Amino acid sequence: MHNERLEFLGDSILNCVVASILYERFVTIDEGDLSRLRANLVKQQSLYEIAQKLELSQFLRLGEGELKSGGFRRPSILADTLEALLGAIFLDAGFNPARDVIRAFYIPILESVDPQTLGKDAKTLLQEFLQSKKISLPLYNVVATHGAAHSQEFEIECLVPKLGIQVYGRGGSRRAGEQAAAKLALEVAEQALVKTPAAGRKSKPRAAQLKLAGIATVQTTEAAVNPEPSPPPAKAANK
Amino acid sequence: MHNERLEFLGDSILNCVVASILYERFVTIDEGDLSRLRANLVKQQSLYEIAQKLELSQFLRLGEGELKSGGFRRPSILADTLEALLGAIFLDAGFNPARDVIRAFYIPILESVDPQTLGKDAKTLLQEFLQSKKISLPLYNVVATHGAAHSQEFEIECLVPKLGIQVYGRGGSRRAGEQAAAKLALEVAEQALVKTPAAGRKSKPRAAQLKLAGIATVQTTEAAVNPEPSPPPAKAANK
Repeated sequence: MHNERLEFLGDSILNCVVASILYERFVTIDEGDLSRLRANLVKQQSLYEIAQKLELSQFLRLGEGELKSGGFRRPSILADTLEALLGAIFLDAGFNPARDVIRAFYIPILESVDPQTLGKDAKTLLQEFLQSKKISLPLYNVVATHGAAHSQEFEIECLVPKLGIQVYGRGGSRRAGEQAAAKLALEVAEQALVKTPAAGRKSKPRAAQLKLAGIATVQTTEAAVNPEPSPPPAKAANK
Repeated sequence: MHNERLEFLGDSILNCVVASILYERFVTIDEGDLSRLRANLVKQQSLYEIAQKLELSQFLRLGEGELKSGGFRRPSILADTLEALLGAIFLDAGFNPARDVIRAFYIPILESVDPQTLGKDAKTLLQEFLQSKKISLPLYNVVATHGAAHSQEFEIECLVPKLGIQVYGRGGSRRAGEQAAAKLALEVAEQALVKTPAAGRKSKPRAAQLKLAGIATVQTTEAAVNPEPSPPPAKAANK
């Protein structure tokens, strides 16, 4: 793989075309949101998914080392290859053909994207959701830390008192644990507030709390692969 | 000024076109250097200089507050305006006309640019220069700090023993002081090694050292505006 210069060029075209697609498509969102959306759409994982749809790995010519190590399946190699391909199209055919190819990749993706939430982390999403319902901000506490210093795991509690939510998340850093907890809290909060059948009716706190007790034992992927004892069950239902 | 969305678009076009100009023009440099060159060419100061050549400030329509505060001369406002203008050209006329405008801005700039050094900091340049001459790396020492904790100034010594260089730089951080010292050391080293009339002849250490003693009292701009006592004179000549 010696396509780094082409990747640089392809990355530039990609960023430019995705910017112009977003500019046209989302006429009311500000430049900060345009930036966030673009960053998410052109990140390695997104390019890797496009490369997989194109079955790009069939066409890779790799060195023996990379073949043995399964390089043709590595997200970074496939994402880089896609960028190099776009660079080559731009060089061979010019801007408009490259733009059309990029549009064809992204139009279906944009059909299923929510511009308000794409690329936002769970803590931000939870905070925005609660603000939209005029509910005060969530609280995060470190409940416990596990493991030795070099491989510590943090267990974080996320509280939304107004909704009786008390859920737990784990992660390799305080921040990661908070994100895991926020993700869970958001699911619970949405279930309690949005998905209540009769929108006008007051939400049923008791039912929401009971649901919580069950949902809070759901583990994040990170925690699920780690066969440590479960975190304490949610206490909200017993308050 | 409510051109932020246009600025986002213009910035994207600019990055793409400058990438393609650099790709075509510098066929042997790698993607890291292409990236460094581009970052330098599209940074605020560079756009501000282009905006000044275009006398863009004449055409700004600013609010009263910005008029009073001299907003039409502010680098950030002029740089942003240039980006918005490029976004507007792209929207109105398409990629190729926008590309031609950007090319017209940058071709003259690129005539006078050294792709090996543009955008590199003084410490890196000094290190690369010394490596190219097979001279061991410079040493940096904090000689003194001045002022209270919140507005400390660092005085840094930069030594290149092989060339008898001992110069001083000052800055608001250790790093800034090192950069100032490296800048001075590079000037002295280039003078001693490159600008010696007969290239084949051995450099004259004694002469170089004497020059040093004078040059080392040259202050960086930062230090020049600060009426503190001068740093100690260069000691190399007395070794």
